[in-house]
Amino acid sequence: MIDLRSDTVTRPSDAMREAARDADVGDDVYGDDPTVNELERRAADLVGMESALYVPTGTMGNQIAARTHTDRGQEILVDDQAHVVKWELGGLAQLSGLQVRTVDCGERAVPTPEQVRANLVDEDLHRPGTGLLSLENTHNSRGGVAVPVAHVEAAAEAAHDRDVPVHLDGARVFNAAVALDVDPADLVAPVDSVMFCLSKGLGAPVGSMLAGSEEFVARARRTRKLLGGGMRQAGMIAAPGLCALDNVDRLADDHANARALADGLDGIQGLSVPTPDTNVVVVDSREAGLTGDEFAERCTDAGVGCGAFGEYTTRFCTNWDVSRDDVDEAVDRIASTLA
Amino acid sequence: MIDLRSDTVTRPSDAMREAARDADVGDDVYGDDPTVNELERRAADLVGMESALYVPTGTMGNQIAARTHTDRGQEILVDDQAHVVKWELGGLAQLSGLQVRTVDCGERAVPTPEQVRANLVDEDLHRPGTGLLSLENTHNSRGGVAVPVAHVEAAAEAAHDRDVPVHLDGARVFNAAVALDVDPADLVAPVDSVMFCLSKGLGAPVGSMLAGSEEFVARARRTRKLLGGGMRQAGMIAAPGLCALDNVDRLADDHANARALADGLDGIQGLSVPTPDTNVVVVDSREAGLTGDEFAERCTDAGVGCGAFGEYTTRFCTNWDVSRDDVDEAVDRIASTLA
Amino acid sequence: MIDLRSDTVTRPSDAMREAARDADVGDDVYGDDPTVNELERRAADLVGMESALYVPTGTMGNQIAARTHTDRGQEILVDDQAHVVKWELGGLAQLSGLQVRTVDCGERAVPTPEQVRANLVDEDLHRPGTGLLSLENTHNSRGGVAVPVAHVEAAAEAAHDRDVPVHLDGARVFNAAVALDVDPADLVAPVDSVMFCLSKGLGAPVGSMLAGSEEFVARARRTRKLLGGGMRQAGMIAAPGLCALDNVDRLADDHANARALADGLDGIQGLSVPTPDTNVVVVDSREAGLTGDEFAERCTDAGVGCGAFGEYTTRFCTNWDVSRDDVDEAVDRIASTLA
Amino acid sequence: MIDLRSDTVTRPSDAMREAARDADVGDDVYGDDPTVNELERRAADLVGMESALYVPTGTMGNQIAARTHTDRGQEILVDDQAHVVKWELGGLAQLSGLQVRTVDCGERAVPTPEQVRANLVDEDLHRPGTGLLSLENTHNSRGGVAVPVAHVEAAAEAAHDRDVPVHLDGARVFNAAVALDVDPADLVAPVDSVMFCLSKGLGAPVGSMLAGSEEFVARARRTRKLLGGGMRQAGMIAAPGLCALDNVDRLADDHANARALADGLDGIQGLSVPTPDTNVVVVDSREAGLTGDEFAERCTDAGVGCGAFGEYTTRFCTNWDVSRDDVDEAVDRIASTLA
Repeated sequence: MIDLRSDTVTRPSDAMREAARDADVGDDVYGDDPTVNELERRAADLVGMESALYVPTGTMGNQIAARTHTDRGQEILVDDQAHVVKWELGGLAQLSGLQVRTVDCGERAVPTPEQVRANLVDEDLHRPGTGLLSLENTHNSRGGVAVPVAHVEAAAEAAHDRDVPVHLDGARVFNAAVALDVDPADLVAPVDSVMFCLSKGLGAPVGSMLAGSEEFVARARRTRKLLGGGMRQAGMIAAPGLCALDNVDRLADDHANARALADGLDGIQGLSVPTPDTNVVVVDSREAGLTGDEFAERCTDAGVGCGAFGEYTTRFCTNWDVSRDDVDEAVDRIASTLA
Repeated sequence: MIDLRSDTVTRPSDAMREAARDADVGDDVYGDDPTVNELERRAADLVGMESALYVPTGTMGNQIAARTHTDRGQEILVDDQAHVVKWELGGLAQLSGLQVRTVDCGERAVPTPEQVRANLVDEDLHRPGTGLLSLENTHNSRGGVAVPVAHVEAAAEAAHDRDVPVHLDGARVFNAAVALDVDPADLVAPVDSVMFCLSKGLGAPVGSMLAGSEEFVARARRTRKLLGGGMRQAGMIAAPGLCALDNVDRLADDHANARALADGLDGIQGLSVPTPDTNVVVVDSREAGLTGDEFAERCTDAGVGCGAFGEYTTRFCTNWDVSRDDVDEAVDRIASTLA
Repeated sequence: MIDLRSDTVTRPSDAMREAARDADVGDDVYGDDPTVNELERRAADLVGMESALYVPTGTMGNQIAARTHTDRGQEILVDDQAHVVKWELGGLAQLSGLQVRTVDCGERAVPTPEQVRANLVDEDLHRPGTGLLSLENTHNSRGGVAVPVAHVEAAAEAAHDRDVPVHLDGARVFNAAVALDVDPADLVAPVDSVMFCLSKGLGAPVGSMLAGSEEFVARARRTRKLLGGGMRQAGMIAAPGLCALDNVDRLADDHANARALADGLDGIQGLSVPTPDTNVVVVDSREAGLTGDEFAERCTDAGVGCGAFGEYTTRFCTNWDVSRDDVDEAVDRIASTLA
Repeated sequence: MIDLRSDTVTRPSDAMREAARDADVGDDVYGDDPTVNELERRAADLVGMESALYVPTGTMGNQIAARTHTDRGQEILVDDQAHVVKWELGGLAQLSGLQVRTVDCGERAVPTPEQVRANLVDEDLHRPGTGLLSLENTHNSRGGVAVPVAHVEAAAEAAHDRDVPVHLDGARVFNAAVALDVDPADLVAPVDSVMFCLSKGLGAPVGSMLAGSEEFVARARRTRKLLGGGMRQAGMIAAPGLCALDNVDRLADDHANARALADGLDGIQGLSVPTPDTNVVVVDSREAGLTGDEFAERCTDAGVGCGAFGEYTTRFCTNWDVSRDDVDEAVDRIASTLA
């Protein structure tokens, strides 16, 4: 099986495994885990924030951010295809009582300043005020779009002008930075907090980081405890996470592989594949007369892991465990199965 | 002041006042108020439902319905301009933890079957299942649109095909029935529950009804208590509510007045006013160089009550306390102030 | 039927009915109802608070208070027999996410300062901070206990010393004031907000008041809208509420009747009845070999309305619709049925 | 520093570290992690349940259980000193809207059947029904009490008689099993779900298990995702968790050390220390004129880690990283500092 279902499937490197074995650990609930502390320090520096918090998953990082930034009774403004809306079980409403207000950001993937201004709500007798603008970069459900700094800045500025803080779901923010050839810190500079994943393309087995101001992270630490994310000798998994921070540059390989995959699949009769910004390849199989479910099943049967994405689309995600040869082989297998 | 701010401003008739004075009352929490019981019986019959519940406000009726129909952790599908989303303080998320999934229904005001099918979510590991489809008729924020039976039916059928119940925010459902010249029961037949207001065009001072199956209303009664809507000798306000049920036919006057108002205002240089379906008149003042806020202020200063509705739009709402002469006078005053 | 089930069963007086008919009304959501405004003004003055809000029920008043005083994630300290804990459907947790921390206040009915100090929680990494101390006076489930000013003061002071605000569920606070022969404003002076009912002993058909500072009431008004308590021409029921404010002195009659009832029932073989502070009479029927359910059923069959209260106890509640002769007759009927 | 603050401070063994390095892993959100799957299988078998779920923390396990067992709007019955009430940030109300109803279980640590029966609430118009009885064994805040099977059985039976499910917070349930010399599965047999920690006395760096029926665990898996507990290559920390399952017998050493510590400290003038059931030692320093805070500070300064527990009490927790010699040394240091 050439596993292109997600970049979450990558297995830890030998270096990560050694790091786990040798990690210097302590009880992180007491703040005593030196490896976690080092990871939080390095992660914060990498994105140019004051402080960072290690969390078991990206979903928890996003949910902590939403809850920590807002007051009870507010709403959150977000793209209607955002991960926090589509794939987190309604946690914004469930865990924090936040009403979701969505806009369709289209290919831009983040709201225009006009969209922000038109959809920010000032608290009044009938309306919850907007407590947070949440962005996503790269944007998964819109095909791994790498949102340029200017678009992040414009949206964030429109929110800040109304004193609304901005969170970035940066599960794959380093993919965006690499694709755009910018420093991650510059990409994140316009927002107040960012969550990024150590698993996914960076290859760590477990864990994500939530970064922001000292004050924000101190409060986020408490929210993490509420959600059940306060782990003990977490250095055992933070150590591979530290290794993962060295893997930012390798994301360029995933992107090159994604372009090769897209080119290869686009050449197959009945498939239409736009050139990907990053490591997410979205294949349209409508002309082949196959729904996403059907096409994904055909690929899987042919030994290429992927997942239905929309009614007629399927997502492939290049990752560390998949080489260029694997990609070429995947294209061949899919071509054969559709022939 | 010719008060066209809303049809909620109507004052009770003498008959209503007499009815309040003479009401036979008891403790409704014990089910002992004969006037409330009669109102609930007649209201259910009027919309062809098994049972009905008296609630202090339409907002409470909608919130009770959403909470009663759903399980913890679900989401609700609704037009993005719906009252329950825009004007109820985020109660769906706040009170019931429901994630709101919105679609843009445009002039149709209710989702097409395709929109329903595309946006209903089956519960899985990452997604809350859809627990309710909520419709609105007439649709306030879309300009008092009277949604025809066929559109309600089509949306409801698409939801029912997936075992998702349907609630109708029918705050002004009798306006819709009168405008469409259909029996209210026929308009409501496709849905599982309906809330309608006794105040607004029907003229009662206080109160709304939530109607549905016996089983639904029994559970809704408990949710009403949770939200603090379990009143005692409520017959005092239910009695005027009974009078209000006789006022359905008079809504035709409001509609005629609204058309007259729209015609009159549309004739004024700089104003653009579509012909209203019912009693809600939305005026676009962009060509006059006035925002909604500015135009509403000018009208108010001229003795015509109204309210800003959008960036360049203003809402006027004809009602029982406003005669045809008042409407003509209002047009004159606004023409003068803009001249 | 001599109805002693509750003082909520009282029917409005003729004066109240006339007041309803003649009320000057407007749309209270716009702040335009002069009768509601007058009621809110007089109610605030009566309890010595800056401002007051008319709400449809006491339950809503208490829930609004809890939500308005607290931040998301806090807990509330309260007697384990409090109405807000036992009889409001878990609304503190359901509507506001508040963890309830209870203490057993015994006959004192409010916590001692020691209990307050021992159970107030300072926010830390593992614990929600205490956001509110809630008291009840008179205390219904503890038998209509009238809590003296000194006990209210002591509890409130202990909370204020830790910057925790205090709410009083004063559904029957005028019963307490009359029983203790103190000015209601003095009884309420130590707390930050008070809810009191116009229905119950004061005889209004519908409605309660929530009083506090201007700033608190302004925010409470918004919470009222969220819960669906923003009624329109509420002057129709506020007018009887104004009459009710004149009924404080008559509560002494209910108390005298309660003592007579207690004396009479205590004289019946098998019944044990402590002397009531106010209008709540709790009868222990264990020696008669009857559970509360059984005894209440016997009384009801004999034409005396009451309600089981505990395993072997039953509650009778004197009220405006029950005269001294009715009380004597009730004692006779119960004596006969047990003979 | 002899670290007796908690048994959460233990550092992983070499075997655990090797196991982490060598773990066979996959993406556990897809169910593809063989090590997690093996751990879930073995954990379920160990406690005699059908199925189990790996979760990052014990807090998350308890919160998942409460949310999964209950419906919206219910309440939970629990000892007033339970971890889920005192130390989990009010998560029951915050995350699941559950009202907490507490009873004082005293030294028994779990409610008597009478307490259960008296405090289970049947859903009615005013009251949330009880959705869950939650027990704790060993009971941390009551001094590591090992609750015998008969007491667990009696409480659970009383709940089951009313169709209320029972969860066991068994963070240290193996300590209870060892202390009582019973099979863990027998201790857990009366309940419907159990959470137990792999960290704490068993020594794993991270993670806890939630076990129950197949159907319960399937739904719990979804709740885990909601709370952000769906980790990826979790086999890296599940592997040490598997080692931890072999450490049950070694808990007897912690208990022997705890008794030695208790004996030693009880011999010091001014300290009073009851004989511990398990590994939690609670020291009363009132006679020494020291509050818990003061005594804990003195100990810490003397190189013995511990934590204030109550106003005059301090908790010491023996654990894998502390030998008998360490315990003797700790007693000497404390004796010196108090001399």
